[in-house]
Amino acid sequence: MKIGVFDSGFGGLTVLRELLTSIPLADYLYVGDTARLPYGSKSAATIARYAVSSVQFLVEHGAEYLVIACNTASALAMNQIRAAVPVDVLGVIEPGALAAARITSSKNVSVIGTAATVASHAYQKELQKLGIHAVEKACPLLVPLVEEGWTDHPVTEQVARIYLDELAHEQTGSGNHADVLVLGCTHYPLLKPLLRRVLPGNMHLVDSAQSTAHDAAKHLSSAGSPARSPKVQFFATDSVDKFRQLGSGFLGRPIDDVRLITLPE
Amino acid sequence: MKIGVFDSGFGGLTVLRELLTSIPLADYLYVGDTARLPYGSKSAATIARYAVSSVQFLVEHGAEYLVIACNTASALAMNQIRAAVPVDVLGVIEPGALAAARITSSKNVSVIGTAATVASHAYQKELQKLGIHAVEKACPLLVPLVEEGWTDHPVTEQVARIYLDELAHEQTGSGNHADVLVLGCTHYPLLKPLLRRVLPGNMHLVDSAQSTAHDAAKHLSSAGSPARSPKVQFFATDSVDKFRQLGSGFLGRPIDDVRLITLPE
Repeated sequence: MKIGVFDSGFGGLTVLRELLTSIPLADYLYVGDTARLPYGSKSAATIARYAVSSVQFLVEHGAEYLVIACNTASALAMNQIRAAVPVDVLGVIEPGALAAARITSSKNVSVIGTAATVASHAYQKELQKLGIHAVEKACPLLVPLVEEGWTDHPVTEQVARIYLDELAHEQTGSGNHADVLVLGCTHYPLLKPLLRRVLPGNMHLVDSAQSTAHDAAKHLSSAGSPARSPKVQFFATDSVDKFRQLGSGFLGRPIDDVRLITLPE
Repeated sequence: MKIGVFDSGFGGLTVLRELLTSIPLADYLYVGDTARLPYGSKSAATIARYAVSSVQFLVEHGAEYLVIACNTASALAMNQIRAAVPVDVLGVIEPGALAAARITSSKNVSVIGTAATVASHAYQKELQKLGIHAVEKACPLLVPLVEEGWTDHPVTEQVARIYLDELAHEQTGSGNHADVLVLGCTHYPLLKPLLRRVLPGNMHLVDSAQSTAHDAAKHLSSAGSPARSPKVQFFATDSVDKFRQLGSGFLGRPIDDVRLITLPE
């Protein structure tokens, strides 16, 4: 089984990292559309066009199952992606929403993500189906702060505090108290220790990367064999050196071989 | 005379704003490659490919003179751009460096810009030709902070202070004292009041947008007629609504009509 994993950049490597543990019997293709990232500030039409060209590349190169590791593409382009390829596709929104719904006692959940993900209300709609009230907040500065390497920096803590205070204020203003925060962007898991310091002690964190890997393992009913080392091929649309350097931090292990590709506009 | 102005996004509108004042006798075409922005974190090869497709569009639509308003494209792709089109091309690096050289008494200049602009050392090389020593500093968080609208926010002031302290430390470490700071990115003029507060009182600011407009006016020996209102056509590769909304802040006046275009990959 060959699983194709797609993200606009490096963040999806946190999903791949979880998949390698959950489904070690598969082999993997990963496309990072690094030349055209970030998707989070772009329009739905552009995001869909870019995402479709990326997943078509994955299927042409043998992917039999697709994981859309990018929250923004999952939130805005799932229908177009499913229509464009003949294989099953799993996004990160549904697994993240399901995990949050299982954990919350107050039936109130907070979600943070990119501007585009939040504007789509994809998490809110998915949680509503499960009887959960959700308040979403766009946090556009968190991705650049992670990419600057400031994952444990006082400035990042201050920015997180501003965003999360506004979010909490909006929740309590509507008479609700969230007990779960969904990390609706694959860059955010790198901020977990910092967010833990800023959030109240009783707030649960849901990492969509972990939830998605678990759900993919269930869908594919993988037995798992930890002794095996899956084969992974990496493709990027911008500098392969940068992909190797930055990507290793997200994947949690060295990345050796990355191929530079050009995707149709 | 039809002048084509190119930027990866909205920042170049600060250059267009100055051009409209300096050369009111011309008409203008502006391309913002908003679908593929930001360029500042990308590789030289990708930046050149994107910039060339943008300027070819401008020339095909009648531009007889080109202003590359994007510091990153000016720094990394000037040769490829000049080779790709049959018209004169002016970038922002040379005018910015010349203006800095004219002002500095200490013959030491500091430059801030995107990661790609600084990695190219384009300003440093240009200033060296003029006998000026330059220290450059990449400030990747300033663009997202401006785009978040935090142009006068305590967090932005703190980030600017961190970057500028590191820069000053590097200057004095080499035994030099800069008396000019070049704003090597078209987003930075929106931070002028904030930077004034952070910088020592005797530090001069050079805005490459202004310098470039003045130089273009000299090259084209424009007489100017303030009574005329130049015709401007706007093109963007992503959401035209967002271009209208965000762009008006950079241009300093309302933007009515923007056409959505697709550029070759």
